[in-house]
Amino acid sequence: MSERKLKLALSVYGVGGPGHHSLWKDPRIPKNASIDIDWYIARAKQAEAALFDALFIVDSQFINATYPAHYLNRLEPLTLLSAVATHTKHLGLIGTASSTYNSPFNLARRFGSLDQISHGRAGWNVVTSFDTGTSRNYGLEEHLDYATRYGRALEAVQVIRGLWDSYEDDAFVADVENDLFLDPTKLHALNHRGENFRVDGPLNLSRSPQGQPVIFQAGISEEGKTLAGEVAEGIYAPGEDFESAVEYYADVKGRLAAHGRHWDDLVILVGATPVIASTDAEAHDRAREIYESDNDFDRKLAAFGRGFGAYDFSQHDLDAPFPDVAALADKGGRTRSQAIIERAREEKLTLRQVVEESAQYKPSPFIGSAQTVADTIEKWFLGRAADGLNLRARTPDDIDSFTEEVLPILQKRGLFRTEYEAETLRGNLGLKVPENRYAVDTDASALVEA
Amino acid sequence: MSERKLKLALSVYGVGGPGHHSLWKDPRIPKNASIDIDWYIARAKQAEAALFDALFIVDSQFINATYPAHYLNRLEPLTLLSAVATHTKHLGLIGTASSTYNSPFNLARRFGSLDQISHGRAGWNVVTSFDTGTSRNYGLEEHLDYATRYGRALEAVQVIRGLWDSYEDDAFVADVENDLFLDPTKLHALNHRGENFRVDGPLNLSRSPQGQPVIFQAGISEEGKTLAGEVAEGIYAPGEDFESAVEYYADVKGRLAAHGRHWDDLVILVGATPVIASTDAEAHDRAREIYESDNDFDRKLAAFGRGFGAYDFSQHDLDAPFPDVAALADKGGRTRSQAIIERAREEKLTLRQVVEESAQYKPSPFIGSAQTVADTIEKWFLGRAADGLNLRARTPDDIDSFTEEVLPILQKRGLFRTEYEAETLRGNLGLKVPENRYAVDTDASALVEA
Repeated sequence: MSERKLKLALSVYGVGGPGHHSLWKDPRIPKNASIDIDWYIARAKQAEAALFDALFIVDSQFINATYPAHYLNRLEPLTLLSAVATHTKHLGLIGTASSTYNSPFNLARRFGSLDQISHGRAGWNVVTSFDTGTSRNYGLEEHLDYATRYGRALEAVQVIRGLWDSYEDDAFVADVENDLFLDPTKLHALNHRGENFRVDGPLNLSRSPQGQPVIFQAGISEEGKTLAGEVAEGIYAPGEDFESAVEYYADVKGRLAAHGRHWDDLVILVGATPVIASTDAEAHDRAREIYESDNDFDRKLAAFGRGFGAYDFSQHDLDAPFPDVAALADKGGRTRSQAIIERAREEKLTLRQVVEESAQYKPSPFIGSAQTVADTIEKWFLGRAADGLNLRARTPDDIDSFTEEVLPILQKRGLFRTEYEAETLRGNLGLKVPENRYAVDTDASALVEA
Repeated sequence: MSERKLKLALSVYGVGGPGHHSLWKDPRIPKNASIDIDWYIARAKQAEAALFDALFIVDSQFINATYPAHYLNRLEPLTLLSAVATHTKHLGLIGTASSTYNSPFNLARRFGSLDQISHGRAGWNVVTSFDTGTSRNYGLEEHLDYATRYGRALEAVQVIRGLWDSYEDDAFVADVENDLFLDPTKLHALNHRGENFRVDGPLNLSRSPQGQPVIFQAGISEEGKTLAGEVAEGIYAPGEDFESAVEYYADVKGRLAAHGRHWDDLVILVGATPVIASTDAEAHDRAREIYESDNDFDRKLAAFGRGFGAYDFSQHDLDAPFPDVAALADKGGRTRSQAIIERAREEKLTLRQVVEESAQYKPSPFIGSAQTVADTIEKWFLGRAADGLNLRARTPDDIDSFTEEVLPILQKRGLFRTEYEAETLRGNLGLKVPENRYAVDTDASALVEA
């Protein structure tokens, strides 16, 4: 087994939490950055020059005027990444798409195409879309509940993986002399009949050098973690503090064995918003300053509502007891929203108190001098809190200070690569190329026959 | 009004009809061309250097082993065109997508993103997908009938255009001093409630320099022509012969007035597979040779079945009377399949006879010396059989001979541009930028108030 190395994704414009509303005001970011493909290509090149594993494009589909700037006007992830693909060579391209509001056949085609265009660098971040606003953009009055969405997500991934295997790798013989382009015995229809989908296939697209796009996911709920254990190959985890990250890591990796999978079959990346300065104190001051640049209560209220499926809390009295929104717990990040509701009830908090408390400044673990941040990353990596980071850098300068100051320390310690191992996303993440389900293992058959 | 000029699209790998099965054997085409993004980018650059209006990407979603090589393994059009976008500057990018098997919100996002990535060069070729094979990839046992599909297509276009107008053009004020990124009065939810769709919006994407992607369509049936009259801005028409093309042109353009539209609001491109040689005779010899390179009966039978919704005619006796497949007429290109069924019945033809007759060699109107082809194009253009061509060139060499030999003649006659008029697809096609439906005409209001 090769030595374990830190994995790194760059989440462009995926900054959440305190201060993300004020990001558009930063003079280093063009005002139209969120729809400027040249800006994304430049960030991708920056990440590739620094040997990152992947660019990670998050997504959202519902907005109103209370949303942060980069949510309001946003490129669709697959079109964005296809444009980036031809300007990069090693960088993985992970795009977010909802299994709830797309047909499996369509998703299989789009991610399969990105995988071909990038010669094996595509990844799909499977989300189930939790807010009522999004469901109303797709004809539903209410979003689907957790169990339905995750059942559908699991089946969608299974169908899509089946479609990706439509052609065996040696299907196209292109034998001019014998007038044979395709060996027809190596094209397979899926004929899937499931609870949520019926899809015949085959897919009209062959496999890329990495076999299939890499399946990412961000499961925090019980259903999400179950899905992760069964099918995820990468996870974008919250990473709020070391202890909970270690617990999460063990929990999710512990679910792999039940599906005949190994710890190395899944890479866990924690979200990290680094703030780096000459000294720890200076970095912490800057982090707090960023937080305080975005201290508008109405925005905090709207952001709080997004955690409940974009619910509009402004209709309630701010100084009355926290409203009875138990029915909403299932709309958003359920685990977190249930905890908020229970605590508010027990401690008899007002809506305003709950919102202010939810939005209060919580310093990220990745704040400090380059040395401190490198130490923290080493601790998280070796302590099995993470296999790597999804870096939510705020500005191009933040990417630079991370790559120029922190990465060299990690490289010197042998924790991060000094050159790419491969030209595919799987190759760099250390994930196996999945064997085509229809391929006969001729070596093995030969052994059996011998 | 500006002088009327010929419009040109290049349909890469969209070659149909006789000889398309043998295309993969041409040594000038890489065996994996249909999934090779570099090959598409090179063709796009070739078209842009020759001042074409657009690259036109056709599509299909169902295959079996009888399909031609470039159908078997095919990039999804939107991912393909996004990758091409950043390697071109003036060329329009028209992608095919089905209104039957995609949600309007999803289509609005994907084409809107392509339009932003290309800075106003996107076009959507609306198809309704007619074959049962495709419907079975999307969970339906049978495809939807004509009326349902076209009703859905019309409503989808209306919804998508509504979503594209979500932001007025001056919505993003990005006023740092006053902490105002978006003028919230210029963001509009659609709240569409229709027969086929309910979509709230708004779309999380602003308009490009051309306002909205251009709507293309390929309506031949009565329903298709009705849809074209109401919403199409470009048509990909068959163009089998001059007389029927003139009739089609007048028919479709005649439908515009009922919707308050003008002849110039719709550009009709006819499909043209040129074969150019030193003399007319040589060109005709080469065209016949191409046809004869693909003379396999089983392939003809499969191709014939595709016109009936990918129906498998091999289950019938080839030498018995043409089978009773009237129920299939609605599955494919209805007008044409009905005519075939009727003629077979009247003339008591066998299945084999009908297939051979359907596949017989019909020389394209665009075969001959460069002079002859230029004359033909002039006749079609000035005679109002077409506003331009969708060039289905077989090989890069065929593009070259068209652009190097035919186009200069047309330019000398003042029929084709000598430089791009604009950097948007609308600008080059001479189509108006659609006004945002929510925009108040402040000049007009001022006049009224004055």
